[in-house]
Amino acid sequence: MGKDIVQIFDTTLRDGEQVPGCKLDADQKLVIAERLDDLGVDIIEAGFPISSPGDFTSVEAISKLVKNATVCGLTRAVKKDIEVAAEALKFAKKPRIHTGIGTSDSHIKFKFNSNREAIIERAVNAVKYAKTFVEDVEFYAEDAGRTDNEYLAKVCEAVIKAGATVLNIPDTTGYCLPEEYGAKMKYLIENVKGIDKAILSCHCHNDLGLATANSIAGVMNGARQIECTINGIGERAGNTSLEEVVMIMRQHPDLNLDTNINSKLLYDTSQMVSRKMGMVVQPNKAIVGANAFAHSSGIHQDGVIKNRETYEIMDPEDVGVNESSIVLTARSGRAALAYRAKLVGYELTKRQLDEVYEEFLKFADVHKAISDEDIPQIIEACNLGIESVS
Amino acid sequence: MGKDIVQIFDTTLRDGEQVPGCKLDADQKLVIAERLDDLGVDIIEAGFPISSPGDFTSVEAISKLVKNATVCGLTRAVKKDIEVAAEALKFAKKPRIHTGIGTSDSHIKFKFNSNREAIIERAVNAVKYAKTFVEDVEFYAEDAGRTDNEYLAKVCEAVIKAGATVLNIPDTTGYCLPEEYGAKMKYLIENVKGIDKAILSCHCHNDLGLATANSIAGVMNGARQIECTINGIGERAGNTSLEEVVMIMRQHPDLNLDTNINSKLLYDTSQMVSRKMGMVVQPNKAIVGANAFAHSSGIHQDGVIKNRETYEIMDPEDVGVNESSIVLTARSGRAALAYRAKLVGYELTKRQLDEVYEEFLKFADVHKAISDEDIPQIIEACNLGIESVS
Repeated sequence: MGKDIVQIFDTTLRDGEQVPGCKLDADQKLVIAERLDDLGVDIIEAGFPISSPGDFTSVEAISKLVKNATVCGLTRAVKKDIEVAAEALKFAKKPRIHTGIGTSDSHIKFKFNSNREAIIERAVNAVKYAKTFVEDVEFYAEDAGRTDNEYLAKVCEAVIKAGATVLNIPDTTGYCLPEEYGAKMKYLIENVKGIDKAILSCHCHNDLGLATANSIAGVMNGARQIECTINGIGERAGNTSLEEVVMIMRQHPDLNLDTNINSKLLYDTSQMVSRKMGMVVQPNKAIVGANAFAHSSGIHQDGVIKNRETYEIMDPEDVGVNESSIVLTARSGRAALAYRAKLVGYELTKRQLDEVYEEFLKFADVHKAISDEDIPQIIEACNLGIESVS
Repeated sequence: MGKDIVQIFDTTLRDGEQVPGCKLDADQKLVIAERLDDLGVDIIEAGFPISSPGDFTSVEAISKLVKNATVCGLTRAVKKDIEVAAEALKFAKKPRIHTGIGTSDSHIKFKFNSNREAIIERAVNAVKYAKTFVEDVEFYAEDAGRTDNEYLAKVCEAVIKAGATVLNIPDTTGYCLPEEYGAKMKYLIENVKGIDKAILSCHCHNDLGLATANSIAGVMNGARQIECTINGIGERAGNTSLEEVVMIMRQHPDLNLDTNINSKLLYDTSQMVSRKMGMVVQPNKAIVGANAFAHSSGIHQDGVIKNRETYEIMDPEDVGVNESSIVLTARSGRAALAYRAKLVGYELTKRQLDEVYEEFLKFADVHKAISDEDIPQIIEACNLGIESVS
């Protein structure tokens, strides 16, 4: 039996780009959109057309450019927003309007000064109006993470009846625990009439560091779309990291889920987005950080050298990283040193290695990281008369 | 009923410091150790004493310095390692030796060329030997994440009998899903004889972005210690982030779990470790990233201005961040602009705001982020004759 495909909805250009300091110009957005299309994302959320003139023209240009992916524009549940989004998307091969409204009591009361029934009416009207422009309408129930499940199910039922094709269940504040977010999806699958007519979507924020785990809990419980960004960028602590959810599904075949992503482009795409947005990726970022595949401790290096699988669960080449770089530090063991010495041309006997290793440790205690170029110097300092054979 | 306390075992100075390029000198380690003690961590893993002369002297110096926390030294299941660690820890008020061995079939076969029975014997011998030096002995079952539960339970039973006080169940390769890691803890709680005599500890790696979620799944299933680092630094994609697990427990009172951490020191500690190690914290890092509490989109800013709780689940001051900074961008709405204009002294009428907002959008389309200093310039460009009242 084939695996179920989880749709990847990339919002790097919308939820990602609203990060302080990350604003892209129109050309940069086009380059990124083209790359996202090559990467194999199913939906590109290109912007929030009514929000600014620049955003409108970008969504329009991306709509003209993109070959395979659906192009999506964000709106509030407001007529004018929907009209402007439809206009910006008119050249898209596969256009989608993404409309919605807050459904938690906190949003209903403080943001809209409204009530539950009136919110459902506004939601339904927005979806119906969007349907007059495009077939594919996604509805977001903002702050669904803090919306009670029974009311949320009512909202979902109403908007499916109005024609919504996708239901986005955002954990807007990044508060949910994975169990809780998964249970919410399960509840909707089991309680919303007509749920088979729509796809449930995970949209998680990382305020507590749980966006990835919540999205995976979501798809394990029946959701079939994940909204995410390259490098997990986005408002505050960001969104779900595209690269993480994609690789979790690929590394856990038992989940029986997969995506249409060409993972070999992940590293390069991460670098491109980081450069264009000026948003640094920390070295210890999962999958795409500079150190993600670097082993430095002696125990680990020894294991990796004996058998890569001892410490590595994925092949760096699968995400476009050329090799598992082994960096030498004061924590590196003899095996790592011998391995690297051999790579630069020195075959050391056990006794020679003991002496060179002592010298190496002294050197490592003063230097932060030791590169291949330092190895000959260390070996020569031992005066053992060893020569490189390379 | 009081909450259960989860012990926080900080390994910034051991698992964190083995990151390429992060090596600290002896003085830097002491400053960080002192800060960790103030922060309220229960255990400081100070280093791996046998690994280098520098490490030995650091562990010794930290042992002398630390007032409240237990000080811990790492060893392999090797006599000499244990002797050297005991020597380095001899001045600690509360010393702990952390010893262990790989228990997964992959480790047993490729790393030790051994078998299951022989590994248990080595484990037991190491714990017994460590007990001759200190009372508090933690055992790690390396690669427990990929060790089958039945054998893992046998190992745990044997080392508890030998005197282990803490059982560390590391997901060494960062492969587990939260459900799976939680189920492992549950299995051990239910199947290991004498488990009430020891504390189960979570040690998770972030290769798939799940370290935090796995640790929380662990404590939800009975573990009572989490091994973590400041900023989640560590080998490859790093370890569990201390700040994330601490704040999850604090924000989810329903878990009925808490820690001894003074969360108001989290932000400053994060900055200190980042500076000393030269390891950048990405702006979208949960809890401690520069943007963690920054709202920039119009919809969000409007909500935050009306009622902070609409979009914020924690008070930034609780983690030592002074205020939820609102940055203006092309996505900011009228409410955010009016709010900030007011802060710098301009009270705008609805009609004035409309005009200023148009000018603001043009400005925002060319600039990346707009600061308070830009606001007067934008208002003056409208030629409305509005003057600042400040």
